[in-house]
Amino acid sequence: MAKEYNVAILGATGAVGNRMREQLALSNIPVKSLKLLATSRSAGQKQTFRGQTYIVEEAKPESFEGIDLVLSSAGGSVSKHFLPEAVKRGAVCVDNTSYFRMNPSVPLVVPEVNPQALSYHKGIVSDPNCSTIQMVVALKPVFDKFGVDKVIVSTYQAASGAGQSGWNELEKEAADYLDKKEMQANILPVKSAAKHYPLAFNLLPQIDVFEDDGYTHEEWKMIHETKKIFFDDMNSDKIKVTATSVRVPVPVSHGESVYFQVADGAEASVSEIQKAIADGAGLVLQDDPSQQLYPQPINAAGKRETFVGRVRADNENPGSYWMWVVSDNLLKGAAWNAVQIAEELVKRDLLHVDDPKASYELFKEN
Amino acid sequence: MAKEYNVAILGATGAVGNRMREQLALSNIPVKSLKLLATSRSAGQKQTFRGQTYIVEEAKPESFEGIDLVLSSAGGSVSKHFLPEAVKRGAVCVDNTSYFRMNPSVPLVVPEVNPQALSYHKGIVSDPNCSTIQMVVALKPVFDKFGVDKVIVSTYQAASGAGQSGWNELEKEAADYLDKKEMQANILPVKSAAKHYPLAFNLLPQIDVFEDDGYTHEEWKMIHETKKIFFDDMNSDKIKVTATSVRVPVPVSHGESVYFQVADGAEASVSEIQKAIADGAGLVLQDDPSQQLYPQPINAAGKRETFVGRVRADNENPGSYWMWVVSDNLLKGAAWNAVQIAEELVKRDLLHVDDPKASYELFKEN
Repeated sequence: MAKEYNVAILGATGAVGNRMREQLALSNIPVKSLKLLATSRSAGQKQTFRGQTYIVEEAKPESFEGIDLVLSSAGGSVSKHFLPEAVKRGAVCVDNTSYFRMNPSVPLVVPEVNPQALSYHKGIVSDPNCSTIQMVVALKPVFDKFGVDKVIVSTYQAASGAGQSGWNELEKEAADYLDKKEMQANILPVKSAAKHYPLAFNLLPQIDVFEDDGYTHEEWKMIHETKKIFFDDMNSDKIKVTATSVRVPVPVSHGESVYFQVADGAEASVSEIQKAIADGAGLVLQDDPSQQLYPQPINAAGKRETFVGRVRADNENPGSYWMWVVSDNLLKGAAWNAVQIAEELVKRDLLHVDDPKASYELFKEN
Repeated sequence: MAKEYNVAILGATGAVGNRMREQLALSNIPVKSLKLLATSRSAGQKQTFRGQTYIVEEAKPESFEGIDLVLSSAGGSVSKHFLPEAVKRGAVCVDNTSYFRMNPSVPLVVPEVNPQALSYHKGIVSDPNCSTIQMVVALKPVFDKFGVDKVIVSTYQAASGAGQSGWNELEKEAADYLDKKEMQANILPVKSAAKHYPLAFNLLPQIDVFEDDGYTHEEWKMIHETKKIFFDDMNSDKIKVTATSVRVPVPVSHGESVYFQVADGAEASVSEIQKAIADGAGLVLQDDPSQQLYPQPINAAGKRETFVGRVRADNENPGSYWMWVVSDNLLKGAAWNAVQIAEELVKRDLLHVDDPKASYELFKEN
């Protein structure tokens, strides 16, 4: 009989946590038991999974006793605190927060791109940032066939990237705007920041906090994570990446205007790139100008795939191309990618922590 | 006594036409008389200018008798038909449509960038495309100080770029979406196209029709117009430009994520670029991450200036930089730039057609 797993979802009541439960229900992971964990504030809420009702519990270190798999999306500080405790108790954690992503002992995995990195996990696997995931899925077939030297990306990111509260704020602001009332911003662009601005009918060129060099942390995530996913080294100079991240008044699904340069000397026609993408894992090519066919957020929302269109050559810069990439930031950008990592761990018989004590020492809070 | 001018606004009832009247009222152009022209459908509407009420008249060739200056924003086919008739009658036309922009006898002018091109006008001066104008205004001080070899731009363009009807459609769709009704699209992305898609809470990577190479006409406008404005040659290879144009659910003010490379060998620090922009004509630098200060469409709407922020170096590609540019597409992107051209024509004593008959032959409909 196939092994069955005790699964916990940490941050079960958030926009991503809810989708982790839904994606887990649709997955091929044999689930023996499910535990839904959140803060004390959300404890007591009811949720359903595969026809059964579950009650959300407050997360405590002991919550992870007997758990095989943790899907975590409750914020960096929660992951920092609880995941070492889970690992200590033998659970493998797939973490959707940024906290462990750059830890060299933590594989940063997109199953279509670098599933082999799972082999070195020590109890924690990180889910990359939403905007990174859809970009590397789209670049992967081009990377394999022609090489990719340089990426210059401008993002169009949905409000739900800031969680359910960001999404709610956008819709409330939009209603107020249409009613000719003043818009009230309390969450976006960054909840903890000093200033908040309306997103409805506006654009906010700030996602996450600013670093000293004028880039936002979101932009640096795209740069470092892309390097780590393709080369397992956040400082790899084999692929140059630069980004501008912008929040747009869309509830779900990020758009990305991706300009990329194939490896020096490689020859690629637009149709070869389109074919590689059409055949690529997790990808749907939607690219027919004659039919006005191109990816749109409202069509991508609720789907697991990454959609690519507007593939064109920059004729003045041979070897450089554009593409327009859209994917559901809560699914492929978060919940589905996490569950897909878990499926891959099961498939590769890697859903176990070899030395929980050593891993706890490695990951524990300082 | 300073000369006074008889002015006509062609397309007086549109989003841009209304703003041309407002900007003309605020300008230093001595207006002797004003004629408001539109289609027969709009004839009879009342509008005010400098405290007086005017009645919109149906445009006919004879409407331009005795007119010195025409501000035109009624669509390419209207300009094609009427502007040669106006020129024949001695009027200088500032045309906001794309129809004459690439005509080598027609200066394509942004007063902060290439006012000298006005000297060769033969009766028609073209106002560039909205997305081009704000980008070249922002690039101009960098171009002058360091040279600019290459531009890679992704746009975030407002619904009003498709006119008042595009703006209205966005707000109607947003209201329906919030009421959980199906959104009805009839205008965007391109009124004359076979398919229409909702823009509210969505992104449309199509502005204007598609060309054979997969670029939209809007993207080609940015490419060719930028070359013509900086080098008076739409094929100039002295500045390489490539673009992806995306319509976003914002009513007014375009955003642009501009990545640019200064001339080979030029050394530019971020602070030198910031200073050049802060000192540049028509520009406001809004660039202080510590104060979360950056340009936003809701703040730029109603203003004549172009706002620039998020200036950063791409450290992996020396000599390359990002900036985020926002401006009111109906003002600097259209009505104000047109009125500003007219002010410049007055100032340079160029508001006359030297050989109306020859100009008519040059511009008349085939």
